[in-house]
Amino acid sequence: MQINTKDARNFCENLFQAYGFSACESSIISDVLLRADLYGIESHGIHRLIRYHDEITSGQVDAKAKIEIVHETGISACIEANKAMGQLVGVEAMKIAVQKAKSSGCGMVTVRNSNHYGIASYYTELASEEDLIGVSMTNTEAICVPTFGAEAMTGTNALALAMPADPFTFSYDASTTVVPRGKLEVFRKNGQPLPDNWCLDANGNPCNDAAVVVDNIIAKAGGGIAPLGGLGMLHGGHKGFGLSIIVDLFSAVVSSGLTSNHVNRKPGSTGICHYFMALDYGIFGDKAAIKNAMSKFLQEIRSSRKAEGQSRIYTHGEREAELMAQRINGQIPVNEKTIEEMKNIAKLLNTECNIN
Amino acid sequence: MQINTKDARNFCENLFQAYGFSACESSIISDVLLRADLYGIESHGIHRLIRYHDEITSGQVDAKAKIEIVHETGISACIEANKAMGQLVGVEAMKIAVQKAKSSGCGMVTVRNSNHYGIASYYTELASEEDLIGVSMTNTEAICVPTFGAEAMTGTNALALAMPADPFTFSYDASTTVVPRGKLEVFRKNGQPLPDNWCLDANGNPCNDAAVVVDNIIAKAGGGIAPLGGLGMLHGGHKGFGLSIIVDLFSAVVSSGLTSNHVNRKPGSTGICHYFMALDYGIFGDKAAIKNAMSKFLQEIRSSRKAEGQSRIYTHGEREAELMAQRINGQIPVNEKTIEEMKNIAKLLNTECNIN
Repeated sequence: MQINTKDARNFCENLFQAYGFSACESSIISDVLLRADLYGIESHGIHRLIRYHDEITSGQVDAKAKIEIVHETGISACIEANKAMGQLVGVEAMKIAVQKAKSSGCGMVTVRNSNHYGIASYYTELASEEDLIGVSMTNTEAICVPTFGAEAMTGTNALALAMPADPFTFSYDASTTVVPRGKLEVFRKNGQPLPDNWCLDANGNPCNDAAVVVDNIIAKAGGGIAPLGGLGMLHGGHKGFGLSIIVDLFSAVVSSGLTSNHVNRKPGSTGICHYFMALDYGIFGDKAAIKNAMSKFLQEIRSSRKAEGQSRIYTHGEREAELMAQRINGQIPVNEKTIEEMKNIAKLLNTECNIN
Repeated sequence: MQINTKDARNFCENLFQAYGFSACESSIISDVLLRADLYGIESHGIHRLIRYHDEITSGQVDAKAKIEIVHETGISACIEANKAMGQLVGVEAMKIAVQKAKSSGCGMVTVRNSNHYGIASYYTELASEEDLIGVSMTNTEAICVPTFGAEAMTGTNALALAMPADPFTFSYDASTTVVPRGKLEVFRKNGQPLPDNWCLDANGNPCNDAAVVVDNIIAKAGGGIAPLGGLGMLHGGHKGFGLSIIVDLFSAVVSSGLTSNHVNRKPGSTGICHYFMALDYGIFGDKAAIKNAMSKFLQEIRSSRKAEGQSRIYTHGEREAELMAQRINGQIPVNEKTIEEMKNIAKLLNTECNIN
C-alpha cells in the first residue's frame, strides 16, 4: 500500500502534538521518521510508530524532558538527555556539534539516557548540509553476540558518516551486526530458513531458524545476531564485534551512560546512548579541493568495471537520495499492518486520522 | 623456526643503519617491525623486510626524507611525507596528534605521500600509553573490490583504535577487507580452496582459487578480495565497502593525497596515505570514571556466557598483549624463507649477520 507523503507528515505531526510535544518538536520528530521512509529504510520509519507510542505512553520517553549539558569544552559536550525523545535529542546534539565545529574546527557530543533516535544518517546529514563531515553512533538493547559467545552483549550499534560530495553526498549508515533484527522478522514471516553465518541459538550454536532466534531475543534467553563478518573468525566476525564495542565506547562509555548490555533492562527508561561529531575538513586544507577529491574518488568507484550481470555500483547515500527525490512529492509504501496501527493509535489519542 | 627477540632487534637496527637511517631512526623502525612479531602478526613483521629492502633500494622510500607540515591548526595538521619511511612518519605524526590532544583535547593528523607503516596499532597505542584514545587508518594499493564491481578500488585499508582499560588496553586493529592478502598466500601455499565469499576473479565472479586471485592482483588484471561482509549485500559486504571508503577519506582525501586506486601505480613512489587521531577522553567527563567504565564493560563481555565448545571470549588487544609478554624476553617464530632473505639482505648490505 502507498500513502501520500504529505498526509503521512500531517498525521505524524498531529499525533506527536497529542502526546504533548510542541508543534515545532512534532515537526522535527516527524521529519526524522519520514526521512527513513523516503530513503527506503521502512524499519525505521512510520512502521515504528507503534513502538514510539508504547514508549511514550509507558513513560520510557518523557515528552516534557529537557536535555542538560553536564560537561563541556570548546570542542566537546556531554549531554544527560533525561529520557527525552531520541529524535529531539539527536537534532539538538548535532546542532551543538555543528556550532563547535564552526568555531573550533570540530565538535564532539556524547549523550546518555536518551531513546531510539531513528536513522543515524539524518543527523550526519545535518552536518554535511553545513559543509562539514558528520559522524553519529548509537547503541541499542543488546542483540549482537561476541565472537565465541552465547549471549548478546552489544547492540545493533549503528555507525554513520556523511561527507559532502557532488553529485551525491557520501552517506554511510550501517549497523555493526551482520543484519538488523528487522531482517530476521521478514524471514520468519516468509517461513524461510536464515542464511548461514547470521545467527546463534541460546547455546551459541549456529541457527537458521528465524523464529527461534527472534523468540530468544525477545525473551532475553541467549543467542542473537552475529557481528558484521559473521560467526567465529573465518570471515572477520571479530572485526564487526570490535566495531560494535567502539560504538558503545563513544556513545555509552565516554558519556557515563549504559552500555548495550544494560540498555532496556529496567522499566521506566531505555538508557540508550548516542555520539555525534561534526568536523570542518577545512582544518586539513582547501575545502573546495578536498570536496572535489572526494567527488572524483566516488565517481571513479561508480565508473569502475562491474561484475558480470551487474550494471551499477552504488556509493553510499546514492540510492537513498534517488528514492527520496521520487517520493518526497509523491507517496511512500506502507504495509497494511502499519496502517491498521496508525488508525488505532489515532483513535486512542482522539486525533484526526487522514489515513484511509 | 625461532629466533631470539634481542638478536632480531640488533639485526634490524644494523640493517636500517646500513640503508642510511640514523641510529635513532633505525631503532624506531625496528621497534615497529618487531612489535608485529611480538603480537603474532607475522605478515607485518620481519617477514616484510624483503619488501622494505626493495622499496628502499628502488627509491620508493627515501631514507633521507624529512616530513613537512603543509597545513596546521590547534587541533590538526596535514603532512607531506616526501616518501619517508612509513614507520618514522607514523611515529612523528602520532606524536604531533598527542601533543595537540594534550593542549587542545584532540589532535588529528592526515598524511600524504608516505609508505607502508607496519601495524596500525603501534601508533594508536602510542596514544593510549599517554591515557588518550588513539585512532589510525592507512590506505594501501587497491585490493578490495566494491560491491557489484569487478576491479579493486580500495586497499586493505586498516582501521585501528586504542582506548585505555585495565587489565588490557582495548586495541582494535583490522583491515576493512574480509581477509588480508597474506591469508590468500597461505591457502595457495597449502593448495587449499578459498572459503566462499572471500574473493572474485577478473570478471567479478566468486572465485575459490587462491592462485588465480593472487596472480590477478599482482598483474592488476581485475578481481581481488571482498570487503568485510563478503560478496554482494547478503552478509553486509556493502558495509565493509563503505568502511574502506571512509579510511580513504581520512587518509587520502583530506590530505590531498592518492586514494588506494592510485597508490603504487607509478614507479618511484607508492603514495600511501595515513590518518592519526589522539583524543583526550577527559573532554567528556571524569577520566578515571570513564576508564573504569570501559574496563567494566570489557570485563562483562569477557565474562559473558561462552558458545558450546568455547572457553574464552577475547576482547581486542588481549591476545596480542599476552603473546608479547611471552616473547619479549624470549623468541619469535620466523619461517625459513624469511631467515634466508635476512641473510641475503645482510650479505648485499655487507652488515653483520647474527642470525643463524
